[in-house]
Amino acid sequence: MTRVAILGAAGYTGLELIKILLRHPEVEITALADRLEGQPHVATIHPSLIGRLDLRLETLTPAELAARAECVFCCLPHGVSATIVPQLLDAGVKVIDLSADYRLSDPETYAAWYNQKHPDPGRLGKVAYGLPELFREQIRGSSLVANPGCFPTSAILALAPLLKAGLIEPRGIIVDSKTGVSGAGRSPKLTTHYPECNESVSAYNIGRHRHTPEMDQILSKVAGEPVEVIFSPHLIPMDRGILTTTYSVPRREVTEDELFQTVRSFYANEPFVRVVPHLPATKDSLGTNFCDITVRTVRGRIVTISCIDNLIKGASGAAVQNFNIVYDYPETVALL
Amino acid sequence: MTRVAILGAAGYTGLELIKILLRHPEVEITALADRLEGQPHVATIHPSLIGRLDLRLETLTPAELAARAECVFCCLPHGVSATIVPQLLDAGVKVIDLSADYRLSDPETYAAWYNQKHPDPGRLGKVAYGLPELFREQIRGSSLVANPGCFPTSAILALAPLLKAGLIEPRGIIVDSKTGVSGAGRSPKLTTHYPECNESVSAYNIGRHRHTPEMDQILSKVAGEPVEVIFSPHLIPMDRGILTTTYSVPRREVTEDELFQTVRSFYANEPFVRVVPHLPATKDSLGTNFCDITVRTVRGRIVTISCIDNLIKGASGAAVQNFNIVYDYPETVALL
Amino acid sequence: MTRVAILGAAGYTGLELIKILLRHPEVEITALADRLEGQPHVATIHPSLIGRLDLRLETLTPAELAARAECVFCCLPHGVSATIVPQLLDAGVKVIDLSADYRLSDPETYAAWYNQKHPDPGRLGKVAYGLPELFREQIRGSSLVANPGCFPTSAILALAPLLKAGLIEPRGIIVDSKTGVSGAGRSPKLTTHYPECNESVSAYNIGRHRHTPEMDQILSKVAGEPVEVIFSPHLIPMDRGILTTTYSVPRREVTEDELFQTVRSFYANEPFVRVVPHLPATKDSLGTNFCDITVRTVRGRIVTISCIDNLIKGASGAAVQNFNIVYDYPETVALL
Amino acid sequence: MTRVAILGAAGYTGLELIKILLRHPEVEITALADRLEGQPHVATIHPSLIGRLDLRLETLTPAELAARAECVFCCLPHGVSATIVPQLLDAGVKVIDLSADYRLSDPETYAAWYNQKHPDPGRLGKVAYGLPELFREQIRGSSLVANPGCFPTSAILALAPLLKAGLIEPRGIIVDSKTGVSGAGRSPKLTTHYPECNESVSAYNIGRHRHTPEMDQILSKVAGEPVEVIFSPHLIPMDRGILTTTYSVPRREVTEDELFQTVRSFYANEPFVRVVPHLPATKDSLGTNFCDITVRTVRGRIVTISCIDNLIKGASGAAVQNFNIVYDYPETVALL
Repeated sequence: MTRVAILGAAGYTGLELIKILLRHPEVEITALADRLEGQPHVATIHPSLIGRLDLRLETLTPAELAARAECVFCCLPHGVSATIVPQLLDAGVKVIDLSADYRLSDPETYAAWYNQKHPDPGRLGKVAYGLPELFREQIRGSSLVANPGCFPTSAILALAPLLKAGLIEPRGIIVDSKTGVSGAGRSPKLTTHYPECNESVSAYNIGRHRHTPEMDQILSKVAGEPVEVIFSPHLIPMDRGILTTTYSVPRREVTEDELFQTVRSFYANEPFVRVVPHLPATKDSLGTNFCDITVRTVRGRIVTISCIDNLIKGASGAAVQNFNIVYDYPETVALL
Repeated sequence: MTRVAILGAAGYTGLELIKILLRHPEVEITALADRLEGQPHVATIHPSLIGRLDLRLETLTPAELAARAECVFCCLPHGVSATIVPQLLDAGVKVIDLSADYRLSDPETYAAWYNQKHPDPGRLGKVAYGLPELFREQIRGSSLVANPGCFPTSAILALAPLLKAGLIEPRGIIVDSKTGVSGAGRSPKLTTHYPECNESVSAYNIGRHRHTPEMDQILSKVAGEPVEVIFSPHLIPMDRGILTTTYSVPRREVTEDELFQTVRSFYANEPFVRVVPHLPATKDSLGTNFCDITVRTVRGRIVTISCIDNLIKGASGAAVQNFNIVYDYPETVALL
Repeated sequence: MTRVAILGAAGYTGLELIKILLRHPEVEITALADRLEGQPHVATIHPSLIGRLDLRLETLTPAELAARAECVFCCLPHGVSATIVPQLLDAGVKVIDLSADYRLSDPETYAAWYNQKHPDPGRLGKVAYGLPELFREQIRGSSLVANPGCFPTSAILALAPLLKAGLIEPRGIIVDSKTGVSGAGRSPKLTTHYPECNESVSAYNIGRHRHTPEMDQILSKVAGEPVEVIFSPHLIPMDRGILTTTYSVPRREVTEDELFQTVRSFYANEPFVRVVPHLPATKDSLGTNFCDITVRTVRGRIVTISCIDNLIKGASGAAVQNFNIVYDYPETVALL
Repeated sequence: MTRVAILGAAGYTGLELIKILLRHPEVEITALADRLEGQPHVATIHPSLIGRLDLRLETLTPAELAARAECVFCCLPHGVSATIVPQLLDAGVKVIDLSADYRLSDPETYAAWYNQKHPDPGRLGKVAYGLPELFREQIRGSSLVANPGCFPTSAILALAPLLKAGLIEPRGIIVDSKTGVSGAGRSPKLTTHYPECNESVSAYNIGRHRHTPEMDQILSKVAGEPVEVIFSPHLIPMDRGILTTTYSVPRREVTEDELFQTVRSFYANEPFVRVVPHLPATKDSLGTNFCDITVRTVRGRIVTISCIDNLIKGASGAAVQNFNIVYDYPETVALL
């Protein structure tokens, strides 16, 4: 039994974590933290939890969190997270960090894309990137895991087998993603106001989205040479789900069969990656920790389609998967 | 040709007014006003208007508006509207007021439901209520028209023929409305944040909604005796549209045929009310100024269903219909 | 461990049952049946189940089902179900029937509302109605349970405490329901074709919906006197969820506090009914077996709001709850 | 005044045509044809038209159509259209054909992509392609216009200026489109059943969609050299709208400024193309005949985003624009 706390529990990833962890037989949620006036009961903020969990959203210091929990799931915004995580680690707590703060290995890349100096640069490059399909062994022994971004999860899982096998050119890979609105978080703004984004599709942050360097970095590590993606996210009128379409140029002639074999064998033992022959819909993985992947050849290009639930495999489900690995619980506990 | 201005042009009713008025051959939009930093071009606020209208959203005094326009469509919030409208009228401008400020005839009722003293109480009770189907003659000669609320429009049009004919009990009428999210306006808030209200239905302000006294008042006038409604609005995951279901008790035995005859003859000459035999969907009147109505008898009760587009017949379309009446243009101009 | 089969596994309630039962530690799904060409793998029909369950959708006789399973969840259409269920029972299998065939106790009422003679009239009136909150003891010893309709579940749970306490008039109760589209099943038709029902609300089968006599019958049993509801379902553009608003007339003066006490004490020990002070949204119970209920007094009427997920508490979740009761498993297993 | 008929009036493009043409001061709709049992009134099939148009959907021969109308908008399925159109032309009627039958110039390409022999191969290659922005002069004198496909309209308008200017490589252009569900037509099927496609994104017909050769052909004509696109359509949970993202490789170094200048000057005099600096949403052009286009450079690639309403600029609006050109009416009549 592990006592866990959630820091930043008022948002969507916090809510999803609670729901998943309530199903975990080896977990006791002992504290929820967020900065809200009056330290409201969690069910006031998340009415779906009425009768499920009797905790308040408290304003807690790292020391107070450490007194109550062995492991903290940190759902704070980037920039803030890296000011708190070091204190938690110092207090002997393990941390699964859902922010972007520990994903990049280079402080200068972080500064360039996040427009701020990293608060804890010394740790960068030494933190396990929480994509078990690629880094399970590093995760296993870690006290801090950087949970991947939602778009990178969908793109990396699709492209890694092809890059690892040297089948595609590492430069100029097109990553065209379609995401539900929950990825934008729970703070109301005009772009996510219902009558603005409903019945509409739009692209945003083309070429400037902060998940770009994360994809570059992890895919470069996999490929063993510099990878550069052109990344375009699109906002779709649905709550949850990401479908990512990638387009790449093969390095040599390759059949669809060989591509499927490559991807299938890469994920042969993975409990949460499903390589499927049909074109998957995001609804197939909605509410699950699965990533569904397929691949096609079209006129000399390679096209992959991958689908995840952005709040689960793209955030809170992956976080629990990482937690299970860190604590040596069966990897799928609470996730099937 | 009439020169018109729109005050409060940054919201959804403002946008809809502009779109309708751009189709009006006898209208020139000469000014748009709202209080926005930097007085942005209207197409910056409403990208759908790019290339359609070359005006800025200016901060304009009533005097400045009067210098530019003969008629002002006032889309300000209640409470604010009644502080500006008197100045516009004094300056010789005609006003179609889309706020709630001049709909009620009694300042005390206003104070009780809107939690504030009315800024211009002397005018209450003397303003035409802009539902042409009931008050066309009063509207015709008016310099100020109080444009009806969206829910009242849907409920009153359904119930008026039955109350007028003395067919139903005036007390305890149930009005159960279902509305799209645009009715909540354009300011982002948690309840209208996409992932909160999408894939969900909820009731709000049951028994406390401010459109209640408006329905009571107008229906009482029609019935010639006090009418009291129990009004429950529900928020539906769609952009636009209101479907209102009413339940009432007949005063005597009455067949569906007689009910249809009553409603049909009441609206025989109305260009924007369609009495239909089937159960209408809000989509049938989406983007139009129509109100579709049907009626049923069920186990000794009378059920009506009425549908409108809340931004058109429920707001901006009705406003232009009123404008056409005031200025003696054919009533359907720009609305078909 | 209980071996179970699902008959009619290609539809939405079948899929939902599979998902819930896969989480049940005491259940083994041993057979899936439906009449599909080629007896396809379940994951071909429900791609979300890829990697979860390795069974085909077979065409199986009652005898074959009985050979493989101790309990059959029957998701066949009404009229068909009652031709198969007797054979299953004769073969010694227990049945949770999700169709409407065994809900009504009177063959003539069935014939009148379902336009067909009941195939197994002798059993009517002797079958437990699977609403544990009202009939737990009858369910416990049953070999056949009639799983309730989705609308009746939402309406009965809201009204039963008030009728039981004699607080409201039993005649003329208004039941105005709003449902997501999955309630219409998985067979494509024009009314549920996306561009027809999206961005639209409509009423259907007003006064003629087949769940009407079901509500009447169960509520009459609870009240101890004849209850008659006026039932209006409305189709809402969302996948899942039912919100039911009821309007009734109190028999004596009663405060909101007393109403809340009545409802709360009625459900004091129920694991899946949550009496809430706020106005619940269907999203609060989405994906769960909960029913959220609140109550209001408005101008001398009593208004209740209740929300369920139509596929869970309104169908497959309730079915598993009934299964747990019949087999004496803890009632919430696989449902939290 | 021109008398027009619509053949295939029961579908979405037929409905949209009717709505647009009802606003056209120089058009009289004299006949609606479709093959429906009982020749129902148009308002029975399209309830939104109640009170707007008093015609039946008749089963009419080409000769009967020719007797009633000077111009026929043909909304028949591909394959069928080319068996009727020749008879209409022979009878002296002008035709705007919304099917795919006359878009391709090569019967063999048609046979390869549409899996059938072309019924009227002799005419292929001689029919004006109804994209006024590229082929206005050919359209002007035509008695038959091939109205473009919805995806090709969005992709060609974005890419034509760049190909014409020789700025991008003509091979390997990625066209990633996102479309609302109405593009799939009005016949119910599982993929467009609400609970299947709502809250979900999926790709379909990747590399095999029939609009591929249409894009190739028109873009090749514009470029003066063979163009080949990799086309991936995606189904989005919304009624209407297409957003197309293209990715291409520049032939030489080029700035975003130069790209904007190229596109802007290409469309300088076009009433329905808006080159915008921001990333457009499909909602900006919803319900209009506009195509909004922007362009970006990202890591040495050129990205374009273009948005249209698939039923208007992608079908019925374009058809009326073509009609206006053919009949020498001002091009924007009924379309603003």
